[in-house]
Amino acid sequence: MAAGETKEAIWHGGDLATAKALFPQAPEPWIDLSTGINPIPYPLPELPLSLWQRLPGKADEAALLAAARAAYRIRPESGLVAAPGTQILIELLPRVMPAAKVAVLGPTYGEHAPAWRKAGATVQEIGDLAEIDGANVVVLVNPNNPDGRIVSQEALIALAGSLAARGGLLVVDEAFTDFAPETSLLPILPEGALILRSFGKAYGLAGLRLGFAVGESRFTDALLAMLGPWAVAGPALHVGAVALGDADWLSKAGEARAADSRRLDALLAPYGRVVGGTVLYRLLETPLAPAMFERLGRAGIYVRRFQHDPSRLRFGLPGDEPAWARLAQVLAPA
Amino acid sequence: MAAGETKEAIWHGGDLATAKALFPQAPEPWIDLSTGINPIPYPLPELPLSLWQRLPGKADEAALLAAARAAYRIRPESGLVAAPGTQILIELLPRVMPAAKVAVLGPTYGEHAPAWRKAGATVQEIGDLAEIDGANVVVLVNPNNPDGRIVSQEALIALAGSLAARGGLLVVDEAFTDFAPETSLLPILPEGALILRSFGKAYGLAGLRLGFAVGESRFTDALLAMLGPWAVAGPALHVGAVALGDADWLSKAGEARAADSRRLDALLAPYGRVVGGTVLYRLLETPLAPAMFERLGRAGIYVRRFQHDPSRLRFGLPGDEPAWARLAQVLAPA
Repeated sequence: MAAGETKEAIWHGGDLATAKALFPQAPEPWIDLSTGINPIPYPLPELPLSLWQRLPGKADEAALLAAARAAYRIRPESGLVAAPGTQILIELLPRVMPAAKVAVLGPTYGEHAPAWRKAGATVQEIGDLAEIDGANVVVLVNPNNPDGRIVSQEALIALAGSLAARGGLLVVDEAFTDFAPETSLLPILPEGALILRSFGKAYGLAGLRLGFAVGESRFTDALLAMLGPWAVAGPALHVGAVALGDADWLSKAGEARAADSRRLDALLAPYGRVVGGTVLYRLLETPLAPAMFERLGRAGIYVRRFQHDPSRLRFGLPGDEPAWARLAQVLAPA
Repeated sequence: MAAGETKEAIWHGGDLATAKALFPQAPEPWIDLSTGINPIPYPLPELPLSLWQRLPGKADEAALLAAARAAYRIRPESGLVAAPGTQILIELLPRVMPAAKVAVLGPTYGEHAPAWRKAGATVQEIGDLAEIDGANVVVLVNPNNPDGRIVSQEALIALAGSLAARGGLLVVDEAFTDFAPETSLLPILPEGALILRSFGKAYGLAGLRLGFAVGESRFTDALLAMLGPWAVAGPALHVGAVALGDADWLSKAGEARAADSRRLDALLAPYGRVVGGTVLYRLLETPLAPAMFERLGRAGIYVRRFQHDPSRLRFGLPGDEPAWARLAQVLAPA
């Protein structure tokens, strides 16, 4: 739920209060496998008190943006704006890009479609890019959440070009691209494309709230005008700058999570088919999914189920050996 | 400047990079008296790593909102939304309250007027509430920044009522109300009023980014819809909840800052007239203002000057005895 008091209708992982309400008798501590957040976070650097005390300054912001440009291989001519998380960019983008008709390549992250609908657009979830049918905005997550589907750079470039030709926009949410940098569109960034990047997932620091939009400066300037100065907290600017500058950590983390995801696949194999994912989550398809969700929940392990597809479960990675052991025990064939 | 790369045209305090550029020869460390931020911050509670790792959860948000309701004496029927700082609420409010004509009671905080202008409104700065002249939105800061002017509750209630009667809105920015709670409109919150509260100033943690809007739920819900879920960072939710629950700290801090502001007034008295302020800043009026700005700057002390009134300087409070001593030395009559 947002930092307000209305009900949240979209299903998300990551809120253990929900899990506890569903399974009040489950043993504590809960193991939260319901997200795609790296369970081994980037080690927090020391945070001088001044980062908390003063308004974020030009120098802090410049350091973050420079680190993001280098880490994400952003072209010098591309506009870049930082925000307190990608979600707020998802909310605000439809207010700076008026769109009559939006196509979202799904199934995917549940927040894109409603953000466009709130702004008055007609939104269609399509299963294939061939079904775009005159939409002036196309949204896709690449690699996709939850199934890891990757749309090729060639296809994205062609799509951005055709959208640009009719004044439209291709929005690519690269929330899970850090560990698959070869899939990123940023080093090319064709006309007509706007890219979203999330800091929190690969770096395991989702609570920090840091995300980016990259694209034509008319869009990034408009987003910045809605965010205003100082939207990103001082500690987030600093942690982001340090972490994005640490290519060595990212590379080692990517190898370690790839090994973890293979280990997870082996545990899941007896139950069904791992139909996709990234190194941070695996998507299992099995008729046993509802029963597995219950069994895992009663054992204090929270995984992600899907409102519109009860045959699938998404598993994030356990973060330590006790968590792996508990998962293995619940998944052990009876 | 915002977390982006466009130029900031509005003058603000709080960015020492600007001071350093103006006075490259000044001795370090700089003493930053250019803001109205409490120089003695609320002591940061321990921040479990989980606050950084996971998305902010329902329980964290509920705890913050409950603490804000109690601390600010918000009526149960009032809508409440938390944001990463008040600034973003200032930016977004004009997008949820379409206004043709806006009156800002000035001179005041420089970000209100441009936010309404960006949204297409005609904005007039007025010096007296008698000059409203058909505006459908009136914005004022109470107590005002920089001069501490206080508009009475009776006047505010009458104004909100007359605005509500024609579908308008009174926006009261209570950024500096924490140490003058008797001036807050929140316990009454008449129809037609929307209140902004800032966490960072009184609690000395501006880098944390936390602010609130309180008003009719049609406004707070619309703001929440633009912010989306998780706009406030996990650490900010936790620190805010703890600090807002600590009435004893606030009361003692208010007494200490009141004593500091009297001490500051005594240092400023030889130079002109302290024409107003709050316990967190003092506004000095003197023909010597430009020369004092220079002299202080060369000594590594940064105060706030004003683009449109060169006869005024705003002084924040020194945070420790060495800073007081350096200020006293520069201000000592020759």
